[in-house]
Formats: sequence, C-alpha cells, structure tokens
Amino acid sequence: MKNPAPPNKEISLDEIFTLSKKVMTVHGANEENGEAVAETVTNAERDGSVSHGLFRIPGYIKALDSGKVNGNAKPVLEEISPVIMRCDAQNGFAPIAHKYCLSSLKAAAKKYGLGAVSIQRAHHFAALWPEVESLGNEGLVGFTCVSYLPWVAPIGGSTPIFGTNPFAFAWPRPNQNPMVIDMATSSMAMGEVQIAARDGLDVPIGTGLSASGKLTTNAAEIAKGVLLPFGGHKGSAIALMVELLAGPLVGETFSYETAERDNSDGGPPQGGQLILALSPDLLGGINWANQAEQFFDKFEAIEGVRLPGARRYKNRKDGNIRKVNAELLEKIVRLTKHDR
Amino acid sequence: MKNPAPPNKEISLDEIFTLSKKVMTVHGANEENGEAVAETVTNAERDGSVSHGLFRIPGYIKALDSGKVNGNAKPVLEEISPVIMRCDAQNGFAPIAHKYCLSSLKAAAKKYGLGAVSIQRAHHFAALWPEVESLGNEGLVGFTCVSYLPWVAPIGGSTPIFGTNPFAFAWPRPNQNPMVIDMATSSMAMGEVQIAARDGLDVPIGTGLSASGKLTTNAAEIAKGVLLPFGGHKGSAIALMVELLAGPLVGETFSYETAERDNSDGGPPQGGQLILALSPDLLGGINWANQAEQFFDKFEAIEGVRLPGARRYKNRKDGNIRKVNAELLEKIVRLTKHDR
Repeated sequence: MKNPAPPNKEISLDEIFTLSKKVMTVHGANEENGEAVAETVTNAERDGSVSHGLFRIPGYIKALDSGKVNGNAKPVLEEISPVIMRCDAQNGFAPIAHKYCLSSLKAAAKKYGLGAVSIQRAHHFAALWPEVESLGNEGLVGFTCVSYLPWVAPIGGSTPIFGTNPFAFAWPRPNQNPMVIDMATSSMAMGEVQIAARDGLDVPIGTGLSASGKLTTNAAEIAKGVLLPFGGHKGSAIALMVELLAGPLVGETFSYETAERDNSDGGPPQGGQLILALSPDLLGGINWANQAEQFFDKFEAIEGVRLPGARRYKNRKDGNIRKVNAELLEKIVRLTKHDR
Repeated sequence: MKNPAPPNKEISLDEIFTLSKKVMTVHGANEENGEAVAETVTNAERDGSVSHGLFRIPGYIKALDSGKVNGNAKPVLEEISPVIMRCDAQNGFAPIAHKYCLSSLKAAAKKYGLGAVSIQRAHHFAALWPEVESLGNEGLVGFTCVSYLPWVAPIGGSTPIFGTNPFAFAWPRPNQNPMVIDMATSSMAMGEVQIAARDGLDVPIGTGLSASGKLTTNAAEIAKGVLLPFGGHKGSAIALMVELLAGPLVGETFSYETAERDNSDGGPPQGGQLILALSPDLLGGINWANQAEQFFDKFEAIEGVRLPGARRYKNRKDGNIRKVNAELLEKIVRLTKHDR
C-alpha cells in the first residue's frame, strides 16, 4: 500500500438509512423516492459493496440539484401483454422504478413461466444484484442488464463505444439466499482505475489503453484513455449484447446516445434496463431445486473455488455496524445542512 | 505450420447435403431425421464452420450405431403456458427438435413479446447459431445455451465440472442477416486443444491446466488435464450460469450428470437446451431497428473491429463449392456402404 488506510468512522445500518433518506429529501426528493434510494445505499453498505453505497450519495445529490433527475418520480407501468411490461421511470432513480415494477413481473413469471420489464427513462447508479436477488427470493431465475456511458472500446479498436455494461443473474435456492452473479463486462470499473491512478498503482495488462491506443499497465494513462472489455473477443461480444438488450430492445439509448443527452453533472445518466424473470417450476418442472443444491455442494467442494456473491452474503451477517470513510460521511452530513 | 496442409477435395453443398442424409439413413435414421441433421451439417460447411460440419458425421453415426440416439425421433411439444413450451426430443438429435419447436416459439414471442422452450432429451452436436439466426430472421431477439461434458474447471480450481457451455445470441436486422454471437464459455474448444496437441503447438496461457493442475501453454498437457473458462472469474461465472440455464432450469442434467449417463460412444451425449425469444417490437416499441443500424455503422467504423458472425456470412456468399478434408470425405463415403 502506498497510502495509509483512510480514517473510518463506525455507523449503524439504521443510521446509514436515516442519513441517506434525509440528504435525499433535503435536496428535494419525496419520502418514497428518498426511501427507495436510501434502501439501496444501506443494502450496499450492509453487503460491503462499498462503491455502490454512501460513496454514490454525492452523485445522487448532484443529479437532484441539477434537476436532471426527478426526486418525486411516480413510475408508470404499462402492461403490453400478460408477460411484458414497460415501466416509464418518469425520470427518477432506478430503485423507485423497481418498487413499481418488480411485483408485477414476479406475478407474471409465476403464472406464465416467464416475464420481462423494459425500464425506460431511469437513472441507475447502483449494483444490479438487488433486482435479481429479489426475483430469486421468490423462486424465480432473474436476469438484468444496463448500459452506461461510452468508456469501453471493443477488442481490436481504441474508440470507446460500450458502457461498462454490467449484467446480473440470480438462481433461487430453497431456504437460503439466491446464488447471484453481478459483473461489469469491462475488465475493471472506471472508478477502480481512477483510484489506482490516484494511488500511483499499476493495473493488469488488458485493463485498458492509453489515450494513444496502447496497451499499458499504467492506471493514470488508462484513466485518460479507454477501458477494455474483460475476456478479449468473447467479453467484447457480451458487452455488445448488453448494449442491445439495455438499449433498443427496451426502447432506450445506447451508451453513446446516453452520453449525448446527459448534462455531465456527475450524477447517473438516463437509460434503460431489461429485467427478465423465469420460473424453473414451469420451465423445468421436476426436482430442479434439489438437483441444483447437489451441484452447488459438488462445486463448493472443489478446492480454491467459491460461489459468486458468497462474500456479500458473508458481509451481510456482520451485525449492524459498518466502518465508513470519515471524510465521505462528513461530506454527506454537510449536504443535509443546506436546502437546494 | 509444422504439418503440411491436409489434402482437400472439392464438393458442392448439394452433394454435402445428399451425402450427409444418405449416411444417416443408411445407419437407421428416417428421412425427416436424416434431413434435419444433413441441413445442419451443410449449413455449417456453407459458413466455413468446419468443426460443426462433416467433421461431426462419424460421431452422429456412432451414436446411431450404438443405439444411444433415436434416428426416428418424433419430438413432442407440450405447451405449459402460452409462452412456455417443453420439447421432449424423444432421444433424437437436436436439429429434429428444433424443427418441431421453433415455429411455436416464434408465434408465442410475436404474440406475447416473449417465449421460451425447454428442450429435454436431445443430443446436441453442432453450433448454436442456426437456432438463434432462425429467430433473428423473424424479427426476434434470440438466446440459447447448452451444457456438455465436464471438461472445464472453475477458476481457482483444477477439477472439471463445467461443460464448454456455449451460448448464442441473435439481434434481428432489417433486410439482412441477424447479428449473431456464438461462443463457448471455455477458453478454447477441446477439439482445438487436441489438434494443437497433435501438431505439437502451444496454446495461450490460461487455456487450461495440466493433469497436475498447473497452468501451461503445452497443448498436449492440457489435453490430459482440464480446460479453463475464458475471461477469468467472470467467464467462470458465465459458465456456471449456463450450467444452470441448460440444466435444472429446463428439467435436464448438469454436465457431470450428463457424463454419468453417457455411453461414451463418441457421439453427442443427451442433455437440455434453453431457447428464448424476445420481441423488440413489444418490449421496446419504437424505432429499434433503425437505431441499432446506426449503432452498427458506428461500431463497424472503428478501425480494427468487426461484428461477431461477420466471417460466417462472408463465407456463406462463397458460391456452392467447398473444399473438405479428403480423408474425412472418404471415411463418410465408406460409412454409406454398410448397413448398421
């Protein structure tokens, strides 16, 4: 470590929720919107998913202050068919859209075996696991993806056109948390590269290119250049797939179009999200849950491997107190002090 | 190149079809089953997807001869809900199952925006692009995946539990072929490693592990060891996702279970397949096709990149004559000479 660990402060999850909700409402969000974002932030801190927790609050607030995001959004759900819904997020943050669409999606998937929501005009600024975990908790397989801003070049090129384009997947498990995969299709998150650049650290070769399009391990040069997808041509193809699924398939923008309409206030840009739910009861029918548990046992018995998402669930069991960056906490407390 | 190019023989696509159908029927397949496999083989040769063309015929024949696969299969389609079908392939090769299920899937997806087929008891021995291309040709987004035999170790471990677990994705394009992604989630196909081993060639580090669990570039050692997923932990998680989607989700086996019930005759083992179809007309609704074409233009304008599947479509335009391995051709002709 080049730098000393930053000073941390202990704070309870209840306090994180209260503070997050307060800062949102002080900056114009209503109760319902403030609570939806506060819950997302609190659950991220609870699971040790720190880069999606309090760290995001200044961005949420910038987007409220600039007027880009509507803190009083009341999303509108339109049923296109018994299994397809479009959710107009009404320019609000994504968590409020999820509050308005997930229960209908679950009902459709349980009844018909399959369902999808196209979320439009939402501002997504968090991880994707909460959405699919919620589906997994109801015995459904969940899949979701979003695109973002064009920071990632396709393999072979040096012009960014993809977002970091994460997707998430959940598999339901009886009497325990779903198995959840949540990954960016970029080699690394831009935030991680920026932190490595700040701290003068190297990153693995393949993470990105310098501004002149050269492969480099120098994080500072990549921060001025472009990221690359994970996994070479295959990862690049998956990033392309996410652009299509979270863009035109759901009636929303590609990452490059998202950037064109964003006001660059530092808050989350507006874009689309696809959420799919599938019922193993209807698709498979027999014994799928026990069969999968036997597989997971076999998988976890392999030395050196663990199930995706296991670390978050471990962190989740870690009581009610979390250590958070003291400077960030002070900043958020200051943000609660002034109206917009 | 260590070895000289193998002697090739010119043959027309029509002859490839006729020969493939004949060898199937001589070994007990009926007209319908023989034609379904022959079409798959011919289309693979047409597109230059050589490892899924005539190269597979000896395996198809072994599976007919051993009685593992039913060459007179008449798949049964059961409608579980208006958008969910289960297709019992009746122990036949996958292409015959596709003949029986794809039109119903397309109709459901066009009407309701979304549809899925669980294929059970099928023997898949080809690429996945034909299924999704067929959906793409009808203005639908397609997704499919299968698992296989346990040849791939999860990242961190050295015990194989995943199949090479390919998936495919198609995006419909107006007045032209769909954009199609088709990839194994392993670093490389086992066949490619075996060929490199035979020819004394090295493979990239990360392709697989030796029998003692060590990373190596020596293809011969990997052929005796295990393959690894592409793209590190992320690719490993995707391989895991495919195990679940093509296994218990559709009422079928994991790769390790597939191996347990296979007779090791060299033909394709029995397993499941998930096929999903989504309608951008219903999910997105507006202008998705033009919007995506603009994106593809922008994408293809980036120096050094090309759309996935472009090479296959280029090969497809290459007239009616193909060069095929002369030794393989002789072997297949010999196989047409004797009854089972």
